[in-house]
Amino acid sequence: MIGRTHKCGEIRESDIGTEVQLKGWVQKRRDLGGLIFIDLRDRSGIVQVVFNPEVSREALELAEKVRSEYVLDIKGEVVGRDQSTVNPNLPTGEIEIRATHLEILNAAKNPPISISNDIDVSEELRLKYRYLDLRRPVMQETFKMRHRVTKLIRDFLDQEEFLEIETPMLTKSTPEGARDYLVPSRVHPGSFYALPQSPQIFKQLLMASGFERYYQVVRCFRDEDLRADRQPEFTQVDIETSFLDKEDLIAMMESMMANVLKEAKGETAETPFPRMTYQEAMDRYGSDKPDTRFGMEFVDVSELVKESDFKVFSGAVANGGAVKGINAKGAAGNYSRKDIDALTDFVKTYKAKGLAWLKVEEEGLKGPIAKFFNDELAGSLKTAFNAEAGDLLLFVADSKPVVADSLGTLRLKLGKELGVIDESKFNFLWVMDFPLMSYDEEVGRYFAEHHPFTSPLKEDMHLLESDPGSVRANAYDLVLNGYELGGGSQRIYQREIQEKMFKALGFTEEQAKEEFGFLMEAFEYGTPPHGGIAFGLDRLVMLLAGRTNLRDTIAFPKTASASDLLTEAPSAVSQEQLKELHLEVTKKPEKADTKA
Amino acid sequence: MIGRTHKCGEIRESDIGTEVQLKGWVQKRRDLGGLIFIDLRDRSGIVQVVFNPEVSREALELAEKVRSEYVLDIKGEVVGRDQSTVNPNLPTGEIEIRATHLEILNAAKNPPISISNDIDVSEELRLKYRYLDLRRPVMQETFKMRHRVTKLIRDFLDQEEFLEIETPMLTKSTPEGARDYLVPSRVHPGSFYALPQSPQIFKQLLMASGFERYYQVVRCFRDEDLRADRQPEFTQVDIETSFLDKEDLIAMMESMMANVLKEAKGETAETPFPRMTYQEAMDRYGSDKPDTRFGMEFVDVSELVKESDFKVFSGAVANGGAVKGINAKGAAGNYSRKDIDALTDFVKTYKAKGLAWLKVEEEGLKGPIAKFFNDELAGSLKTAFNAEAGDLLLFVADSKPVVADSLGTLRLKLGKELGVIDESKFNFLWVMDFPLMSYDEEVGRYFAEHHPFTSPLKEDMHLLESDPGSVRANAYDLVLNGYELGGGSQRIYQREIQEKMFKALGFTEEQAKEEFGFLMEAFEYGTPPHGGIAFGLDRLVMLLAGRTNLRDTIAFPKTASASDLLTEAPSAVSQEQLKELHLEVTKKPEKADTKA
Repeated sequence: MIGRTHKCGEIRESDIGTEVQLKGWVQKRRDLGGLIFIDLRDRSGIVQVVFNPEVSREALELAEKVRSEYVLDIKGEVVGRDQSTVNPNLPTGEIEIRATHLEILNAAKNPPISISNDIDVSEELRLKYRYLDLRRPVMQETFKMRHRVTKLIRDFLDQEEFLEIETPMLTKSTPEGARDYLVPSRVHPGSFYALPQSPQIFKQLLMASGFERYYQVVRCFRDEDLRADRQPEFTQVDIETSFLDKEDLIAMMESMMANVLKEAKGETAETPFPRMTYQEAMDRYGSDKPDTRFGMEFVDVSELVKESDFKVFSGAVANGGAVKGINAKGAAGNYSRKDIDALTDFVKTYKAKGLAWLKVEEEGLKGPIAKFFNDELAGSLKTAFNAEAGDLLLFVADSKPVVADSLGTLRLKLGKELGVIDESKFNFLWVMDFPLMSYDEEVGRYFAEHHPFTSPLKEDMHLLESDPGSVRANAYDLVLNGYELGGGSQRIYQREIQEKMFKALGFTEEQAKEEFGFLMEAFEYGTPPHGGIAFGLDRLVMLLAGRTNLRDTIAFPKTASASDLLTEAPSAVSQEQLKELHLEVTKKPEKADTKA
Repeated sequence: MIGRTHKCGEIRESDIGTEVQLKGWVQKRRDLGGLIFIDLRDRSGIVQVVFNPEVSREALELAEKVRSEYVLDIKGEVVGRDQSTVNPNLPTGEIEIRATHLEILNAAKNPPISISNDIDVSEELRLKYRYLDLRRPVMQETFKMRHRVTKLIRDFLDQEEFLEIETPMLTKSTPEGARDYLVPSRVHPGSFYALPQSPQIFKQLLMASGFERYYQVVRCFRDEDLRADRQPEFTQVDIETSFLDKEDLIAMMESMMANVLKEAKGETAETPFPRMTYQEAMDRYGSDKPDTRFGMEFVDVSELVKESDFKVFSGAVANGGAVKGINAKGAAGNYSRKDIDALTDFVKTYKAKGLAWLKVEEEGLKGPIAKFFNDELAGSLKTAFNAEAGDLLLFVADSKPVVADSLGTLRLKLGKELGVIDESKFNFLWVMDFPLMSYDEEVGRYFAEHHPFTSPLKEDMHLLESDPGSVRANAYDLVLNGYELGGGSQRIYQREIQEKMFKALGFTEEQAKEEFGFLMEAFEYGTPPHGGIAFGLDRLVMLLAGRTNLRDTIAFPKTASASDLLTEAPSAVSQEQLKELHLEVTKKPEKADTKA
């Protein structure tokens, strides 16, 4: 330890008698019986320092000036505490420092955020005074976790002979994918760079370059309207390999993730991870990233109820939709009519027309729609849901996508409300065989489900021109506890197939050539078969650190309106700067943003 | 090895008899006596594969279709070569692969760049077909070196308990420093983010956050007109520490660099590294980043010649300038009058009015200006330069900055031309005690020499208001072989001093508050004393890999006009994109750039 002899949080009984020099922040000052007690904090933890006039009157007098968050340089001796004052809640609770010297390195005003884990302040205040927010132990631990996780991943990939290679941030804007952040060029008037949404094309070019195994921990950008779990800039663990097939890559990534979990959390993840097709995930959970830490799986009762007297059910099936339900085991007593009305409002925000329900009692099914089901049908429903007295059955009857989305979200909500999710679990799951593309009715063309460079499954290749909507992708998403942790695929590496792909996506030959001609040309100069994956690092850290908000894993995050409340970015710039970039602003700047 | 059993370049005599599966690129095909020989290349190197009709006629027939850069999957047996065909230049030269199976994974057109170290093609072609250029062994080695160097640095800093923490790319534009790349905000019309020139402010805020030791390998951006050793985006090893003083940090960084040199190059760098003040570096070498691998130091003869009859010399001194010279030992014979005329033209591009010279002969000094110096003065000059017969003395008489710049550059040019630079050396040097700021006559104010957050030397602090130009910075640049490898300093951490600094730089109180108010506010909430350094990773890799161009250390670099010739960025974007960003372009895009 340069500059000090010990870290505050690491001094122990065995250090008693040692002269120490410590540097850190004042967590708390207490005056008691002519003595001053200071809890001194550094990155490692807290230690108690005592100023005693019999040891040094000078130090004591200086200590009187000290307030919370002052920065101190302290010299003293480690002494044992009286048995009566031992603090068993503190790792350093057996000892204290008898201060001989004190220097105030910097003063501090009374901080607007208390430096402790439990605070009750607005997100806005936390972001405006982010440097104080980051002093809180829980935030310090999160960033230590982030460092450790990143290091574990790097070390693993280094062992596997991956080369970390950096790709450009100033790239070309392409029409596919999300909205680009643009960067105007000064040298080329009217031209723009785009910040990368991912290094996808560059990592494929690195495979064409013969690097065989590439990775990068890399910043990516999306100019989208933000949700709680999105940030305009995010970090991706980006991986690409040549010559490995899907199974090779999946096995390697499982071993990497299992290693991270073990080293960072002391938890064991059994490999191989479970797998599920996209279709199965949608059928059973209404989601392509199901949280498998609890059951409450969908029961498809379309066949059972298609001829029932309840027109909402039979009508949905007749219109090509479906009727599916979930069984909230033993929850009949927990949900009043009013509660269920609230659930109905909830599913309506996901476009469901309504929520039907039945409570299971010893005597049979109860509820407003129970009358539509005769004894036989009621029995079949009970069997289908494996239902017992006390269960609450909840149904959505609608188009298939609406059923999946609304009932899937309701399942997650109930899982949390009923406390049936084991929060200590880390459930990895591969979701496979995604559709390669899906049709956008509004725009009137197909869009790639992952990106236009994803290879079709070999057995579906022949459908690429005749029936593109039914082609499955040679792709694999890794899901952890209901979050999409990463998405990977084998890539197209032959010009002819890439051309067919662009054609299916509605590109003219000229457009395809103009946008991606250089990549297709690379395919003609000996590009090896390749595939890769990208993981969201922010999200992985969030889950491992037990946080619930992505912002807590990013040192200086943006608000929902993409502002930095600390530095007040974005901001107006000078006319001179705009002129150099050959730009005029067509709308006046608004006042600075102050909301999270 | 998944997907194959061996790497091409690693098969040895001890593998004879082994069945192998290899994947790679065709370096060369030769047909000889009914057999086909293919040199197969992967990241590890090259191995010879033989197709023999007696082993597999099928494989042989397929091999006939194979051309350079085809991608192959080969199975076969390792066999020893006849003594007569052993290739001692190849690590795999004792063996070859007798192929039993061949699969063509991808075909290749004839590449426009040969995949070998010695190529004679334009930089433009190399950048347009960068993925082929990167296949060349020397480029592969450079990126392996880059990976290794980065890993060594990360491991060292991890050991020293630094946390890698990511800082934003979408930041606030500030008026100091180089020109920012701007990113228009869609959500906040007329507002812009700036891409960071360095994470300087954020790393200081991380010190205010109590992280104590931070590092990041981070992309930085400068929108400047480019020289050969500049790129619009570059990578920095960014480091900041709390509580360490200058000497602590310097010692730690020396140990890091010595470790990199040892592990990456097998070379030993003696610590502590030599040091020199800025003033001494300018006096002796005319440069703040002197190449100390050779001598040819400046000799200041101003005093000697101030009263000489040669008016160019005496006049320069009378005008407050200086007369300095260098001694090109034994080079009198190498430089004809015409050659010296060329050197004169060279120094003129650095604003020198001319170049005076003297050749030292047994009989005395010779040359057009020799007549101005009497025997005594000639003797004094010889002594000053430690000159012997055969030496060439070259002089610039001009203002001090012009003397430094022109003669310093001439020294480097002569050092190369005369072959006196030991290219195997790695000469580290700290340059210390830079001026804190310098006055820009044109703009009429002081500018920070490093940046406005650099602390003055304690002993010069009192001059900050009265004589800012004479204040020395508590700063330290690390120089390697004449390149500035990194710059560091202790930072200001007290509001009062930071305010004085901004005032000295011509900021009004309001401007300082508007631009950097959040940082000065952080200083008031317990910011510890801190300091740090940043190293140019591209440049470090360039020097360690023995390359002479920064572009060779960056996978996808930009040209001098900041274009990417491969993907053709920057490019025009749609009107819709501009409209969303509330922008109009005032100048039409030009045709795409095709020059390096």
